[in-house]
Amino acid sequence: MRALKDRILQEGRNLGGGILKVDSFLNHQVDAALIDACGRDLATRLRRVGATKVLTAEISGIAPAVATALHLQVPLVYARRTRPVTMPDQVLLTVAPSHTRGQLVELIVSPEYLQRGERVLIVDDFLATGQTILGLARLVQAGGAVVVGVGTVIEKSFEHGREALIPLGVPVESLAIVTDMRDGQIVLA
Amino acid sequence: MRALKDRILQEGRNLGGGILKVDSFLNHQVDAALIDACGRDLATRLRRVGATKVLTAEISGIAPAVATALHLQVPLVYARRTRPVTMPDQVLLTVAPSHTRGQLVELIVSPEYLQRGERVLIVDDFLATGQTILGLARLVQAGGAVVVGVGTVIEKSFEHGREALIPLGVPVESLAIVTDMRDGQIVLA
Repeated sequence: MRALKDRILQEGRNLGGGILKVDSFLNHQVDAALIDACGRDLATRLRRVGATKVLTAEISGIAPAVATALHLQVPLVYARRTRPVTMPDQVLLTVAPSHTRGQLVELIVSPEYLQRGERVLIVDDFLATGQTILGLARLVQAGGAVVVGVGTVIEKSFEHGREALIPLGVPVESLAIVTDMRDGQIVLA
Repeated sequence: MRALKDRILQEGRNLGGGILKVDSFLNHQVDAALIDACGRDLATRLRRVGATKVLTAEISGIAPAVATALHLQVPLVYARRTRPVTMPDQVLLTVAPSHTRGQLVELIVSPEYLQRGERVLIVDDFLATGQTILGLARLVQAGGAVVVGVGTVIEKSFEHGREALIPLGVPVESLAIVTDMRDGQIVLA
């Protein structure tokens, strides 16, 4: 996606330690037209997997997941990090290491929304180590549903998340791939 | 919005204490087509205020804010509850009481996204006591921007948020208004 790559090169900031700041268009401020285009592109690339639902993790996954679900015309579910009072007592719960927080975070989904028969497309803003996506996949499997694909906006290929996702055995699509962030650079594939 | 009201009556759960569970289509699982229609309706009702940006609060405000921003063709910003590592040292910060958490939560926005000259439409999933929206309005004013309108998906009129927002002096639109939740009921206007 040319528009996305241009924005990463123009506005992305390499904060060191593999942290790519894209707060001006993806993660804090969201460019609505760009995120809509991202959702359309992910939907086009992954329509063939026949997803019945999109799953993401709060917080920064929600905007791209909404856009993708709109174009696929399926519902989306976002895993919570804390259990709201509206959730039932029994939940699907796992933990995953947070890349930017340096600690384990919980991923919690109400079991009524990940049932047997659902074909789930996991969408997130970043594919880095893949640990959040693997955590979401554990929730899908624990619920009795199946993961049918993974779509992310930005992949940091040097963190090898794509390899980590191989055991899922599903298509993985990313709209922009950052191959190198050493020495303050942002190198795109 | 008939479709929204029907879903509230069919799937909404009155959990007591004024808590309306709408996790099946708005707050945990999101019906993409419905949220798109909500965004279109809020955009139509509020286009006249000339917003240059939509502001919401993570987490459950993000989906309706994305949909509204898409239809207004403006960017959106979501206030964070915790400061991510990508945020600058100086931020716009306030606190607001969380209705469902029973405690104060922080609302944090990077000052670069709420500058003088911006005309800000505040969007959220619920209008209850109005305290979150007033907190967002404080951030807008602290940044030097102006609030030009408020749009919410569901208003609980018995919590009097609309009255609390009168000092803002801007149009307030809600797509469905719950007037009474006593005795386990869900009564819509």
